[in-house]
Amino acid sequence: MSELPPYWLRDNCPCAECRDPRNGQKLFQINDLPDELTIAAGTELDGNLEVLWSDGHRSRYPLEWLTAERDGDGRTEADKRLWVAADFRRGVPEADWETYLGDPAEQAAVLAAVRRSGFAVLRGVPALERQVLRVAESFGYVRVTNYGELFDVRVEPDPNNLAFTSAAIAPHTDNPYRDPVPTLQLLHCLENSATGGDSGLVDGFRAAAILRAESPADFAVLTRTPVPFVFRDRRTELRADRPLIEVDGLGRIREVRFNNRSIGTLRGSAEELTAFYAAYRRFAAITLRPELQLAFRLDRGDCLVFDNTRLLHARTAFRQDGGRHLQGCYADLDSLASTLTVLHRRTAALDAIAELFAGEGAGEYLGEAVTMAEHMLQAAAAAEAAGAPEHLVAAALLHDVGHFHGALHGRDLMEGQDNRHSDTGADWLAQWFGPEVTEPVRLHVAAKRYLCAVEPGYRERLSEASEYTLAVQGGPMDDRQAAAFAELPGAADAVAVRRWDEQAKVAGAATPGFDHFRPLLAALMN
Amino acid sequence: MSELPPYWLRDNCPCAECRDPRNGQKLFQINDLPDELTIAAGTELDGNLEVLWSDGHRSRYPLEWLTAERDGDGRTEADKRLWVAADFRRGVPEADWETYLGDPAEQAAVLAAVRRSGFAVLRGVPALERQVLRVAESFGYVRVTNYGELFDVRVEPDPNNLAFTSAAIAPHTDNPYRDPVPTLQLLHCLENSATGGDSGLVDGFRAAAILRAESPADFAVLTRTPVPFVFRDRRTELRADRPLIEVDGLGRIREVRFNNRSIGTLRGSAEELTAFYAAYRRFAAITLRPELQLAFRLDRGDCLVFDNTRLLHARTAFRQDGGRHLQGCYADLDSLASTLTVLHRRTAALDAIAELFAGEGAGEYLGEAVTMAEHMLQAAAAAEAAGAPEHLVAAALLHDVGHFHGALHGRDLMEGQDNRHSDTGADWLAQWFGPEVTEPVRLHVAAKRYLCAVEPGYRERLSEASEYTLAVQGGPMDDRQAAAFAELPGAADAVAVRRWDEQAKVAGAATPGFDHFRPLLAALMN
Repeated sequence: MSELPPYWLRDNCPCAECRDPRNGQKLFQINDLPDELTIAAGTELDGNLEVLWSDGHRSRYPLEWLTAERDGDGRTEADKRLWVAADFRRGVPEADWETYLGDPAEQAAVLAAVRRSGFAVLRGVPALERQVLRVAESFGYVRVTNYGELFDVRVEPDPNNLAFTSAAIAPHTDNPYRDPVPTLQLLHCLENSATGGDSGLVDGFRAAAILRAESPADFAVLTRTPVPFVFRDRRTELRADRPLIEVDGLGRIREVRFNNRSIGTLRGSAEELTAFYAAYRRFAAITLRPELQLAFRLDRGDCLVFDNTRLLHARTAFRQDGGRHLQGCYADLDSLASTLTVLHRRTAALDAIAELFAGEGAGEYLGEAVTMAEHMLQAAAAAEAAGAPEHLVAAALLHDVGHFHGALHGRDLMEGQDNRHSDTGADWLAQWFGPEVTEPVRLHVAAKRYLCAVEPGYRERLSEASEYTLAVQGGPMDDRQAAAFAELPGAADAVAVRRWDEQAKVAGAATPGFDHFRPLLAALMN
Repeated sequence: MSELPPYWLRDNCPCAECRDPRNGQKLFQINDLPDELTIAAGTELDGNLEVLWSDGHRSRYPLEWLTAERDGDGRTEADKRLWVAADFRRGVPEADWETYLGDPAEQAAVLAAVRRSGFAVLRGVPALERQVLRVAESFGYVRVTNYGELFDVRVEPDPNNLAFTSAAIAPHTDNPYRDPVPTLQLLHCLENSATGGDSGLVDGFRAAAILRAESPADFAVLTRTPVPFVFRDRRTELRADRPLIEVDGLGRIREVRFNNRSIGTLRGSAEELTAFYAAYRRFAAITLRPELQLAFRLDRGDCLVFDNTRLLHARTAFRQDGGRHLQGCYADLDSLASTLTVLHRRTAALDAIAELFAGEGAGEYLGEAVTMAEHMLQAAAAAEAAGAPEHLVAAALLHDVGHFHGALHGRDLMEGQDNRHSDTGADWLAQWFGPEVTEPVRLHVAAKRYLCAVEPGYRERLSEASEYTLAVQGGPMDDRQAAAFAELPGAADAVAVRRWDEQAKVAGAATPGFDHFRPLLAALMN
């Protein structure tokens, strides 16, 4: 422990005073920490390191956090699967559009392919104008450029770009003259009945890695030479000075820009220019090696999504014997990665909830005749039978989840403490669900106190255990409390959940299992 | 010349075979050039270097191009004015919104300030919802993020970000967890009647330059350490591993990211972590030096535009004794720079055209009784008097500009050659004007041949010189030619221009000068 750097450790203090639990954002500035900060005392306890700081602050770090490995943001070669064309002999990463839309696992697989391999193809995307924007919005935000919100790739009478002719286009990245460059490109095929006009992809990271292996000096030249990329038309004049190969601070390949059409005049000494052009030509020759060329054809309804910081894309020439029309747009990798991470997080959350029902949930429920899982499934089934909207079925299903996750356990409640399980549960669920689900959960205990106050005969219907906890929870509301409760936005929903809650204590009643409700929960997480 | 690197020189061949004259994009790939390429012969002639290549290609390079200095894309410290707060003692870069909209010079000054100093304030922007998007669209494109197309900065009941509270916010850059980071931020004040809530800016490039001067080793640590920036809420989980200070391949400061709230867990050896945190704290302390803090207040209608890759922005705490509401959005520097360059280009073009009228235009006009300038001004005045739309006034004003710029001169035409001055002029004007201006110019010679064919008595009205050139230009059209001409989209406009052309040969007629027409031309360049 003595070798733990104090400022690093303290900067990562996870306590609620140092870090907003909702978003993980820190609540202090690095210079708020005192000079000469030291660890006054450190103790390992229950899988945590407990630290007392020289300024009196206390922190607790899970030991597994302390020893975690370095990971990455997924953008360097370290997190990629570098490829050659033969790696896709059995097909490219692809999915059906409708399946992608309906199945989070399929969507995650597509987005993961773009992250890992740099591309994926969606098949069966309706061949409609502007549909490519819908594809982009399924995982992120469209990046508008001088070409517009989207661009049409077809033969134009007076093209401002080679793309809008029928000529072949050698492997390149797009918009290198933009900084920030659009990091993702989408190409959606509306028609391709021309002879030729096939698509090609090259893994630019692989090409760069080959250059590094074969000629480290050339690789180094390309990483340190800012190259002026330029584009000019009547309304636009763009320039970005960026290296052909960008590496991060640890030397890992992170971005490739490659587009001879757009390279302006590089300036430097004769030696620098000679070295650059030799390295550039060597790199260009590598990108043209046959084993790196992945060729395929985009047909009507196919949408190619690819990493424009990594993959070079190409097109064979075509004869104007049939129509060829693609629509394209740009988007960015950061939002795609966010969408993928959130999809994984939601799957993990659903798995965790399922595990609660199967594990801890099979245990006794505060002296009732049913288990916790049976109780919550019965409540959800009652909500469903009543034709309740999905968010209330979910709230009924999850209303007691705080019993699993509270700092105190149900037993403590039975022993006379208020464990605030409704708040605990609602806060935990708020990581994935909106207030339409979490607020009825938060208010379901208050709803019991409310109903006992305002509805004659309600209290008599409480189970013995529930009557017992009512006292712990504060007893029936007084008139002022009840009036205030009735004003809350989620009050009516909470009352509905509470009624299903009371009904859901029938020993041996048959209900659907947790899996029945899982798709409903998944949909509510959006 | 022997020391000119051959591939560098050839890659920059400006001939129309190598480079698309419309957009400067190259028409060949670097590997299309042969191995062992050499300069077979080189000669200096008329201010050019003429090169014969070993593969038989010929190139011509202006000598002034050969010896031009290295310039930049405007994004590194080399192209900035690094500042301390006292540099703005007499006020920050600012402009009135209406003036900015109406005057290209004022707009250029504002955008240049953002490029050079990192920020500018527009005053008197209507305090309307979504108006900030209009400001962004005046020079570029809005970048959508998880906060939406725009975001409201005001106190929120359940904020997912410190921005949406009344707390003070220390100097920071926004969205460091995005890659690409939004490079520009706009903050538009709709209301600021709270006590406090003032704005602050710090030049992050200046702070980084100070760190480099005071502690080069710390500076180096910060440039080479990828720092994990993270953000997480219910629908978002972003991460970007980027250095706090990014330098280009030549070691020049290019980007600063600074936001302790968003720094996740950095991993590395104890030495690395200790070195990083020492450097980080030293840099953070520099950003807080009083002389770097530029403080000002945004009032209702003010819109701050600033470089989010360079400036740190801050806010003092405020009392909720009055409303405070900003709307913000993100955009990107590349489009802002493009807009600025095009504004400069247009100003230079108008200056060049004005110079033509004043200089070469004062010369004789092919044997007519008026100078070229008088002739074109008379044509424009006739169009204006006829109530013609602006694009036709411009076409009338500029219809003979090809006489100045053709490869052949008017004298050659009089000697029996067709100098195609209408095409030359139209192509030259197409750098700045759309087809509504250029096509009537292109067709104005054809329109004479057309009118002589179809309109009885027209030919008799031609001046002596125009009658002479008619023969050189092909004589009156035959029926087929006339029918084809009448079908062209710009035919009617060209005929209108032609009629003003014929009228515009009156010795000594008074007309407005070129300056009268300049605003009209400027507006048509948009």
